Amino acid sequence: MEKEILTELGIRVAPSHAVSSRTDLLEGLDLLSYPAVLKTRRLGYDGKGQAVIRDQEDLERAWQQLGDHDLILEAFVPFEAECSLIAVRGINGETRFWPLTRNVHSQGILALSLAGSFDQSLQEKAEAVIQAVLDHFSYIGVLTLEFFVLDGELLVNEIAPRVHNSGHWTIDGAETSQFENHLRAITGMPLGGTRANREALMFNWIGELPDREHILSIPGVHWHDYGKSARPGRKIGHATLTADTRQELLVNAHTLARAAGGTFPQLLSRMLPV
Amino acid sequence: MEKEILTELGIRVAPSHAVSSRTDLLEGLDLLSYPAVLKTRRLGYDGKGQAVIRDQEDLERAWQQLGDHDLILEAFVPFEAECSLIAVRGINGETRFWPLTRNVHSQGILALSLAGSFDQSLQEKAEAVIQAVLDHFSYIGVLTLEFFVLDGELLVNEIAPRVHNSGHWTIDGAETSQFENHLRAITGMPLGGTRANREALMFNWIGELPDREHILSIPGVHWHDYGKSARPGRKIGHATLTADTRQELLVNAHTLARAAGGTFPQLLSRMLPV
Repeated sequence: MEKEILTELGIRVAPSHAVSSRTDLLEGLDLLSYPAVLKTRRLGYDGKGQAVIRDQEDLERAWQQLGDHDLILEAFVPFEAECSLIAVRGINGETRFWPLTRNVHSQGILALSLAGSFDQSLQEKAEAVIQAVLDHFSYIGVLTLEFFVLDGELLVNEIAPRVHNSGHWTIDGAETSQFENHLRAITGMPLGGTRANREALMFNWIGELPDREHILSIPGVHWHDYGKSARPGRKIGHATLTADTRQELLVNAHTLARAAGGTFPQLLSRMLPV
Repeated sequence: MEKEILTELGIRVAPSHAVSSRTDLLEGLDLLSYPAVLKTRRLGYDGKGQAVIRDQEDLERAWQQLGDHDLILEAFVPFEAECSLIAVRGINGETRFWPLTRNVHSQGILALSLAGSFDQSLQEKAEAVIQAVLDHFSYIGVLTLEFFVLDGELLVNEIAPRVHNSGHWTIDGAETSQFENHLRAITGMPLGGTRANREALMFNWIGELPDREHILSIPGVHWHDYGKSARPGRKIGHATLTADTRQELLVNAHTLARAAGGTFPQLLSRMLPV
């Protein structure tokens, strides 16, 4: 339904095929070819409810794992980057947009979000797309679109009708946070400004928290602990690094990535090469 | 005791005289002359527990009102400006200072606080004074000094051993707020940066809240409602106006002052002439 509505609105999405049976799946793979991504139509998040199908063996495993659900098969998009646009629409129809955020995932879970790292033309394209979605639903509150960037163009990957993990940097880095503007919108208050005040980069803490004291010793770090118990693959907190300049951000981000450990140094190098 | 310690540390304070009897008061007025300020030694705040004595009639009224308490009589300081410095000292003795904040009071209650409006030499003088106080007490956490500016020099008016109303702008306008750094300090965590991210001016809501929707329609406003019942002279909320430039702040501040009404337009004109 999401893809149908987007397509009706003239918005580009990845090619896909509805899958309710094994026959549908084989048909879909014929149409879209390998690799493709099999997803449950509902309640998927953080890589849960999806499987990449690269060959016949993956196909069998994916069907065994997900065959009980209503599914959708999507062509695998060889994207250059992933990004998201967060917007808010007020009761009077006024709409505001935060800067496009570049995202890097690790095993299907958002790991890093960097605010304001795309040029103005891509920002404008993304705003036009989200404006069409907001107006179609006469939406009130915060809504997020996740995009793939392919050949400098945007494909919508997913609609998140809510505040979004990739917008948590707005708490510490924007004039008004996504949370405050959502509340302003649904209570009929005027919307706040959505400018970034500073350079901002969010690190998600997945599964376990890094050493808090070490992380807090890095300049510009804002620490957010959700008070959740640690569990593999669970988001239990984040840190937003802020800085006055991109250069300052770059230097402190690599220090932070090393302090956080795991795959952060290599994920960051993919996004922000030194 | 406060004044004795400050004097021992070589810090300038307003001349004063301890008052435990009517005779002490008359003696004090002989020494300091009119006008002077009679204050309770303990538990005074927001203009409560103090009276300005300009003449014989004020003297009688002040004695009737405050005579039951241990008192101090202070010379009235014809200050050019009032300001405060907020500092934080960590467990390891590391100290950080926010920018000097200019304050305007109305009937003894803080009404406006403007961040970063003094030159670097006054900032350095204030930092040297507060450093001496922090080190004297081996203080841990946030501490505030309120100053009078007189002939370009600083006189300490009051020590507030805590986060301070004049530092509420740090929530929305500084890299780390006074509250977060107090928590970092007392839990032994590294201290966060104390730079101002943006121009910031706080308006205190005293007695009643202004029209929220009107105030929130002004760009850069951060609204803080303490959820307290309205009562004359009670601080029940504040708004911090932030902006990228002093010029932008100036324009929006005067709009905000008009929207807030009461004496705000004239108080603001005293602090930030158009």
